[in-house]
Amino acid sequence: VPLEERLLISQIRRLAGEGRHARPFDRGKRAVIAGIGDDCAVLRIPTRHELLVTTDFSLEGVHFRRDWHSPRLIGHRCLTRGLSDIAAMGGEPMAFFLSLALPRRIPQRWVEGFLHGLLRLAMQFNIPLAGGDTTQSPDAVLADILVLGSVPKGRAILRSGTRPGDRIYVTGALGAAAAETNFLYEKADKSLKQSEAGPQPRIAIGRFLRESRIATAMIDISDGLSTDLSHICEESSVGANIRADAIPRGWFRGREVDLRLALHGGDAYELLFTARKRTHVPASIAGIPVAEIGEVVSGNRMTLIKAHGRRSYLKPQGWEHFRRHFSRH
Amino acid sequence: VPLEERLLISQIRRLAGEGRHARPFDRGKRAVIAGIGDDCAVLRIPTRHELLVTTDFSLEGVHFRRDWHSPRLIGHRCLTRGLSDIAAMGGEPMAFFLSLALPRRIPQRWVEGFLHGLLRLAMQFNIPLAGGDTTQSPDAVLADILVLGSVPKGRAILRSGTRPGDRIYVTGALGAAAAETNFLYEKADKSLKQSEAGPQPRIAIGRFLRESRIATAMIDISDGLSTDLSHICEESSVGANIRADAIPRGWFRGREVDLRLALHGGDAYELLFTARKRTHVPASIAGIPVAEIGEVVSGNRMTLIKAHGRRSYLKPQGWEHFRRHFSRH
Repeated sequence: VPLEERLLISQIRRLAGEGRHARPFDRGKRAVIAGIGDDCAVLRIPTRHELLVTTDFSLEGVHFRRDWHSPRLIGHRCLTRGLSDIAAMGGEPMAFFLSLALPRRIPQRWVEGFLHGLLRLAMQFNIPLAGGDTTQSPDAVLADILVLGSVPKGRAILRSGTRPGDRIYVTGALGAAAAETNFLYEKADKSLKQSEAGPQPRIAIGRFLRESRIATAMIDISDGLSTDLSHICEESSVGANIRADAIPRGWFRGREVDLRLALHGGDAYELLFTARKRTHVPASIAGIPVAEIGEVVSGNRMTLIKAHGRRSYLKPQGWEHFRRHFSRH
Repeated sequence: VPLEERLLISQIRRLAGEGRHARPFDRGKRAVIAGIGDDCAVLRIPTRHELLVTTDFSLEGVHFRRDWHSPRLIGHRCLTRGLSDIAAMGGEPMAFFLSLALPRRIPQRWVEGFLHGLLRLAMQFNIPLAGGDTTQSPDAVLADILVLGSVPKGRAILRSGTRPGDRIYVTGALGAAAAETNFLYEKADKSLKQSEAGPQPRIAIGRFLRESRIATAMIDISDGLSTDLSHICEESSVGANIRADAIPRGWFRGREVDLRLALHGGDAYELLFTARKRTHVPASIAGIPVAEIGEVVSGNRMTLIKAHGRRSYLKPQGWEHFRRHFSRH
């Protein structure tokens, strides 16, 4: 069935369940004054707040594969990427926009599954779909998600706020999503699908770390711990020592994942943050364990400390690694 | 040369000429507090202003063709689409974001031309590139542009504000861009390129119409007069009578374009607005002529009035028409 643009728009509106007007968001005010149905969306930012903006492309063949991932999970993941960026600033999500390009002959059922996955997560965080764009794609499914959020003036947690002596923390456990992707890749079996439990953006943890003023710098782990830690080091002009045995590893098929997957695997959507040495950091926040994995040092070098104090240079190699797996070229 | 993501990012930063921090924008304040280089961009909205948000996909094979259009013009057009939406709300542009997916083997020179076209227009309107996303595309060039703007509280010019009796106006002249596209399509000659003078977003006109409170409803003509007028009619629950001889037609290759192109041709980026019957509307605004082309009536029907009062039903058929030309399927 060729894609009918108007049909898609009305479907999105119907699934969003709100016609052209957004539901009130969680701070008791209408954030979205005019949504879908005008040249621009009009939004109100809470007073004494700053605006947070993040955009993330999700491309078939690069970020997901239709034969590996269910449409619901793909929709869920698209929005998780954006919400996770808001969480990493300590922000409150406000509204999202979807730009979607679909090939002509995509099954209507696929589109419905995708939108359901996306909108179910949006409802969970009480953010309306405030606009976007739909068009035909020559070949693959392409989604660009824009998430808007807000944060009290001057309180966004940047990547640049840490200094030598700070401790480094990570939420949850790492490497399980990457282990699953590896497994699917090596089997290359079309009957296998990635598990349905999508990653959860850590909005509540980000909020707690901002309100409590615990975090001095923060990033979300989307490209892999090694790569995302290197971004903090770069923006803060520091180095880092990481203890290999302190890195919390996820589980896949009954076994703890390999250290390399926990270090370099993407799609974890956990938070990586720093705090002053003397700051008390809870062992768990919003029900998720928090682990201290190392410390910030001067210089610009990342070091991995293994058993018996053996040290090696920790190279950022998250994103590149996984791009190889997904790319069809 | 395979696309190197980091190279592209550094290139964008260099061309933007501002590292990670944005230049101050025209209202004498820094809008962008943190730009490229963190999880989110952080922006400050002027007090007592609302936020305007618009996103526009530009896809190779759907919105442009690399063998017809120069990279500079393609870049220019991408941003024009977004700025034109801000103009249509009477807004002030503030910052823009670029999500760009490029095929592996695209020439570096093409990318540079594209970014130059984009950033030259951005500089003209004094808006910084505040972030975005770059990735590899399986096949075609895909750009999603996000433009943020602001407007004093409650003063955005919506599509829904007109009522029967209002007069309908259009800026500039229509149909020239469509005539050129038609010509290129019919010739199908690869040595021909579309002319280099890109469309100009009507920001100054939109601002004037907001400040003077002249416009009761407004939209930009991106999909063709007939289609965009139908959006105003739909959102305002009205009909419209349009006088064929009053529609300002553009010129192409020494001749005034056909009426059908002026009625249904896209990519004009002129403004279509309404004003109360008794409101004085200047004959030109910011140097661009303004023409009265008809009036708003009750009902939901659009009527075209030709010579000798002959009336016909005016069907919205802008976008569909041009999609046929561009699509490669």
